[in-house]
Amino acid sequence: MSDLFLRAARGERTDRPPVWLMRQAGRYLPEYREIRAEYSFYEAITTPDIAERITLQPWERFEPDGVVMYSDILTAIEPLGFEYHIESGVGPVVENPVEGPEDTHRERTPVAEELPYVGELLERLSERLDGRAAVLGFAGGPFTLAAYAVQGEPARSFMALRRLRAAHPEAFRRLLEAFADVVAEFLAYQVDHGADVVKLFDTYAGLLGPADYREFLLPLHREILGSVDAPTVMFARNMGGRLESLAETGADVVALDWTVEMDAARRQLGDRPVQGNLDPAALLGDEATVRERTREIVEAAGPEGHVLNLGHGVDRRTPVENVAAFVETAKSIER
Amino acid sequence: MSDLFLRAARGERTDRPPVWLMRQAGRYLPEYREIRAEYSFYEAITTPDIAERITLQPWERFEPDGVVMYSDILTAIEPLGFEYHIESGVGPVVENPVEGPEDTHRERTPVAEELPYVGELLERLSERLDGRAAVLGFAGGPFTLAAYAVQGEPARSFMALRRLRAAHPEAFRRLLEAFADVVAEFLAYQVDHGADVVKLFDTYAGLLGPADYREFLLPLHREILGSVDAPTVMFARNMGGRLESLAETGADVVALDWTVEMDAARRQLGDRPVQGNLDPAALLGDEATVRERTREIVEAAGPEGHVLNLGHGVDRRTPVENVAAFVETAKSIER
Repeated sequence: MSDLFLRAARGERTDRPPVWLMRQAGRYLPEYREIRAEYSFYEAITTPDIAERITLQPWERFEPDGVVMYSDILTAIEPLGFEYHIESGVGPVVENPVEGPEDTHRERTPVAEELPYVGELLERLSERLDGRAAVLGFAGGPFTLAAYAVQGEPARSFMALRRLRAAHPEAFRRLLEAFADVVAEFLAYQVDHGADVVKLFDTYAGLLGPADYREFLLPLHREILGSVDAPTVMFARNMGGRLESLAETGADVVALDWTVEMDAARRQLGDRPVQGNLDPAALLGDEATVRERTREIVEAAGPEGHVLNLGHGVDRRTPVENVAAFVETAKSIER
Repeated sequence: MSDLFLRAARGERTDRPPVWLMRQAGRYLPEYREIRAEYSFYEAITTPDIAERITLQPWERFEPDGVVMYSDILTAIEPLGFEYHIESGVGPVVENPVEGPEDTHRERTPVAEELPYVGELLERLSERLDGRAAVLGFAGGPFTLAAYAVQGEPARSFMALRRLRAAHPEAFRRLLEAFADVVAEFLAYQVDHGADVVKLFDTYAGLLGPADYREFLLPLHREILGSVDAPTVMFARNMGGRLESLAETGADVVALDWTVEMDAARRQLGDRPVQGNLDPAALLGDEATVRERTREIVEAAGPEGHVLNLGHGVDRRTPVENVAAFVETAKSIER
């Protein structure tokens, strides 16, 4: 099973696409809501025993080909000294956000000291799954981490960070570079502790204009992904008009959000493996539609180098049977 | 002056690009904040005298080539019986959102009865400006109106409406069609009352996957824009990967957000006039950078069929002198 994922990530032809879902361990699962009634999000991700139980919930139900550790894209903000918590109805809130351009020199602690629970979780998962599924690690990317570090809370346009770019480009660069260092160390640490594949979520990178992206961020994405000794997946939303930039990051697999058409993406990306890209909203309809739209994507992607997934995380209102239908459809494909 | 705008919108060569800014009458202007200290947003947009004063504030300072009426993209939600207000720190809140698929049959009142203040405002602007600048009207598009009508408040992914698409496609279609009828009537009404150009802001249309966009929304955009007897501009965010869809709407001018590169857009869109697309964050730096980046866009766009603008609305923290520099740069171009 694990082999299927790795082969697709290398661009090989597979008899069916490997399948997993972003946010597959989440609120749409009743057993997840049960555990979360007892523990806060932060407790759940930082306690390996709880995080392991949650991570394995979708595995026990659906046996996807990838099992993504239960964690958060913002954990990598902590080694630079930022503290955050999840505020109900708001999202992540950083308690000590960047206060100005001079406040971008932060001391850094080693990942292994700051985030040991991630390594422990990955070791447990690797042992429990024993090659039956690929263990996926991940981290937020430098732009996304910096966006929260500067804004202090979720935002639609993360203008505080974009303002730093405009008014204090050197501080902007310094902050991105500092996060890139942390993320590179963190992903290597994850691979050392059992991750078979790692994914870089620079979710909000698409808020940066194309020239700024190429100047400031692309070199860091290249550096991070190039330093990892395992297959890598690159995700950023709203990059539909510049998929070639995502390929230039050097990621083994380019993750496509749901606003991109699979066949058009294939034409643009050549033989670069891709992941995606069913609209998570499609899982809010009926099972027949889920099956149909899943098959359409698999067909458009073709047999080589395709990891089936959604274009974004599973929505919390998703019926469990639709997730089952999605995974089953992938598994029933024969070619 | 007005002629310059209309010529660019027709794709003609102009000695310099006409220029205006989305949200040019807004919180970055001290005189705007002064008026708004006295009146709520809703009072300000619904009282022609106040709306006229606000609309003309940036005209008095910068003399842009387009003067966009001070209003809101959501006004067009009202003729279908939805009431909304702006909640400080939240944004637009709909008081009676759609409660389920059956709740998508709403009675409709004529635009002229529901939104007479828009017509009165446009008449005043047309008289006051007297051809010195193009008077711009606008409306939110059907997806964006429906997104608020169903969600009831701002959201990052407007999943409530996307869920309606998945679970109750006929109700989804009915709601979009109802809004499209209102919007078509509203834009025609605006032209009748003095708008020289109208702009359709289906800001969130990019949240709909490409196939869904083509099936449900593109025919409505075509219908709306085709029914208007004046030059039209089409704006939707995050459509960088499918600019050709925006051209297929039949809009005279395709507005580009800041995540699209001007020269790439030109290559994709052929001789279709374009508007845009400076990153609003670029106006948060220094004046020299504003001038430089503005010139870069003008050069990349070339002399034919380009209306200079930002890729999104002016941010409230923008220094007034940077807006001045942006407009002056456009006006100083000679070719």
